Amino acid sequence: MTPDEFRKHGHRVVDWIADYYEQLETFPVLSQSAPGSIRAALPAAPPEQGEPFDAVLRDLDDVIMPGITHWQHPSFFAYFPANASGPAILGDLLASGLGVQGMLWATSPAATELETHVLDWLRELLGLPERFRGNGVIQHTASDAVLVALLAALHRASGGRTEHDGVHSGRFTVYTSTQTHSAAEKACRVAGLGSDALRKIDVDPGTQAARPEHLRALIEADVAAGLTPAFVVASVGTTGTGAVDPVREFAEIAHEHGAWLHVDAAWAGVATVCPELRWLNDGVELVDSYGTNPHKWLLTNFDCDAFWVADRAALLGALSILPEFLRNAATESGAVIDYRDWHVPLGRRFRALKLWAVIRWYGAEGLRAHIREHVELAQEFASWVAADERFELVAPHPLSLVTFRLRAGDDATRALMERVNASGQLYLTHTAVNGAVALRFAIGSPQTQRRHVEAAWAALRS
Amino acid sequence: MTPDEFRKHGHRVVDWIADYYEQLETFPVLSQSAPGSIRAALPAAPPEQGEPFDAVLRDLDDVIMPGITHWQHPSFFAYFPANASGPAILGDLLASGLGVQGMLWATSPAATELETHVLDWLRELLGLPERFRGNGVIQHTASDAVLVALLAALHRASGGRTEHDGVHSGRFTVYTSTQTHSAAEKACRVAGLGSDALRKIDVDPGTQAARPEHLRALIEADVAAGLTPAFVVASVGTTGTGAVDPVREFAEIAHEHGAWLHVDAAWAGVATVCPELRWLNDGVELVDSYGTNPHKWLLTNFDCDAFWVADRAALLGALSILPEFLRNAATESGAVIDYRDWHVPLGRRFRALKLWAVIRWYGAEGLRAHIREHVELAQEFASWVAADERFELVAPHPLSLVTFRLRAGDDATRALMERVNASGQLYLTHTAVNGAVALRFAIGSPQTQRRHVEAAWAALRS
Repeated sequence: MTPDEFRKHGHRVVDWIADYYEQLETFPVLSQSAPGSIRAALPAAPPEQGEPFDAVLRDLDDVIMPGITHWQHPSFFAYFPANASGPAILGDLLASGLGVQGMLWATSPAATELETHVLDWLRELLGLPERFRGNGVIQHTASDAVLVALLAALHRASGGRTEHDGVHSGRFTVYTSTQTHSAAEKACRVAGLGSDALRKIDVDPGTQAARPEHLRALIEADVAAGLTPAFVVASVGTTGTGAVDPVREFAEIAHEHGAWLHVDAAWAGVATVCPELRWLNDGVELVDSYGTNPHKWLLTNFDCDAFWVADRAALLGALSILPEFLRNAATESGAVIDYRDWHVPLGRRFRALKLWAVIRWYGAEGLRAHIREHVELAQEFASWVAADERFELVAPHPLSLVTFRLRAGDDATRALMERVNASGQLYLTHTAVNGAVALRFAIGSPQTQRRHVEAAWAALRS
Repeated sequence: MTPDEFRKHGHRVVDWIADYYEQLETFPVLSQSAPGSIRAALPAAPPEQGEPFDAVLRDLDDVIMPGITHWQHPSFFAYFPANASGPAILGDLLASGLGVQGMLWATSPAATELETHVLDWLRELLGLPERFRGNGVIQHTASDAVLVALLAALHRASGGRTEHDGVHSGRFTVYTSTQTHSAAEKACRVAGLGSDALRKIDVDPGTQAARPEHLRALIEADVAAGLTPAFVVASVGTTGTGAVDPVREFAEIAHEHGAWLHVDAAWAGVATVCPELRWLNDGVELVDSYGTNPHKWLLTNFDCDAFWVADRAALLGALSILPEFLRNAATESGAVIDYRDWHVPLGRRFRALKLWAVIRWYGAEGLRAHIREHVELAQEFASWVAADERFELVAPHPLSLVTFRLRAGDDATRALMERVNASGQLYLTHTAVNGAVALRFAIGSPQTQRRHVEAAWAALRS
């Protein structure tokens, strides 16, 4: 494709996206496709000759769109949001266009330096501790962040012996709440510990936050059994209900036993751009690593997990390998960061551009307004739920996630979810809270206005 | 950003990229930035108020561009290429615009089905075995592919016990050539085996391909020592010289001992779109998994690693976890693929769109022409090197990578590289072959024409 052809088709694609956002409300939120229906509509064999780009756009409309669940729809209240925004999309487009690969500082100095810089900006915007300064990196997802934090923890707990002996150098244990995302269990399996190494910390039935006294008891039992507590994950905003684990108390217990404390604040962390929500940061000055996803609730399209470590030595110890083909003067000078040593992949995309574009376009003010609007709408929604005697709230809802259920029980609650989701009018998902089904209403699309939340409530209560 | 603002700024960004490709040759290939210079030119603090998008584009030109090493430059001959192309960039832009997250089939059926479908197309285009049909997935990078293949291998070798016991369920060993990418060692460390579990297979000094008789000897020694050979990585196109390991012989040895054979064909695999290069596939019908990167040499911008397994059961066994909040009817029906179980991250971008756009725009014919042009240019370059008595070729060069050195020795060879790279006229990197420094000349940019290769040779020989 020549630059001129790119110009022509590129303008059409930009217009297609702008039109999409203008028409977003006309689509059913949840795709109504049957399994296999998209594949059945695609040619079985790849084309021998090239086709015009317009043919791709035509099939996008005719074949692909019916199979899309619209995460950017104003009535998407499922899972957690996966925000996109204009400046993020354009920043990402610039990254695709430049096509640089920032595995080493030397392979595009600006890709590394802008990333370190923008993560310092974000650290400041979120009120995160000074010790994270200069120690930020973009990971793909929160699951990747939990994994690399675990690898750093194992490296530290083993005195570096995991590099050669792997997890055979000890019997390491990991702790997280029963409400934590599956990422912690997946990390245990990927890192060779297996799921048996994972201890689940009980939660308080009211707050759904992990109980520090149970963490302490679990760790002490493991120490007594000759095991090595290596890694604790505290959730700031659990996936189920948005609960906030007591980070400060966790930090005291973890450090007493030499375990690494990682905070997974994938969804909720970015809310601390608002000073009134900085209570979410209580204790984070004591933790070893911290991750939050601008790709969830901070207007930056997937993927962009912001991850910081207090001390990068263990992380680099766990992941650095320098083969001959990557040796270069800048690396050997020690004056630069080579981000390939901060995660599993070697190659890396210039993802800092989109976060840079978002922060500059919205400014701190705009980012705060974005978060505040969703928190306010959620509080209003929760007040409606509380006022309707058929429903009950099942957990605290200080941010933009409200969990609730029908008093009529699990079957009725699940049936309600299935009915509204099938209508295409809105989309919400469920979880289990204290053993019972609960619905999750997560507000996060920049397109969501009060009227969409009102309409959702009308659909739910009718 | 409103849809109308997006339209306006989006057209400007598209034009910026088109202009960039038109002017690409005017930039020095390798950035001449000093460490810290980019950061020093950026404001220390994030903006309080939002800024116009034009300010971002201005700083992109003034601050970021001097720090860019131009991977798309026609005279970029370093590492391996990281191809971008117009249809890929626009396919990726559509993915950003749609902003869907395809962790489950249910969260956007088209994102899953198009991915399975396009990987079946690619399987056919590359002449890969029938047993991979329906079993493809896009991983971020070849390193991620090696890691998940290793996890599947450990699951199988342990009879599923790694799920609970991790690598404590046995003493597993891994085998790869001394010339394999650092990904295999990194995977051993990430997966908890440690680098001591990795056995390096000697290579033939002439071909630089791993010696199957040495693989057999290593495996037999480990079996005799009571260890469990679990995973073998064969490289089709090593990073250093592009050597091709004997996959068929490896497969016989691996299967005799129950080990999983993964083929890492990150760079070279896509060349098999040309029937005359299908010799690269010899034996792949016998392997357990296979990965190649359209984001290297098949016009698809980073990241896009195409990964197939012969039997998905071990992969899913290693990586499936189903928390309550992800339960849904489609998953429970068993009729769909949920790609979150095929890799480490939970969330995933709609990356199939860019590969779909590339295959449709170029067609099989266009993709073949792209590969053939680079192979021809490389053969011509190699003939010039061979004809100049000051130089020598150091390894076979059947594809688009030529490795060579000055007969005058390591210092002279390294000095030559540093001189041409500092000129900004071209960029190439080095490796070690049989203990001596060698330069790697990798042709891969779609912008590269014969005159760029001629100019590079003129700079190298002057």
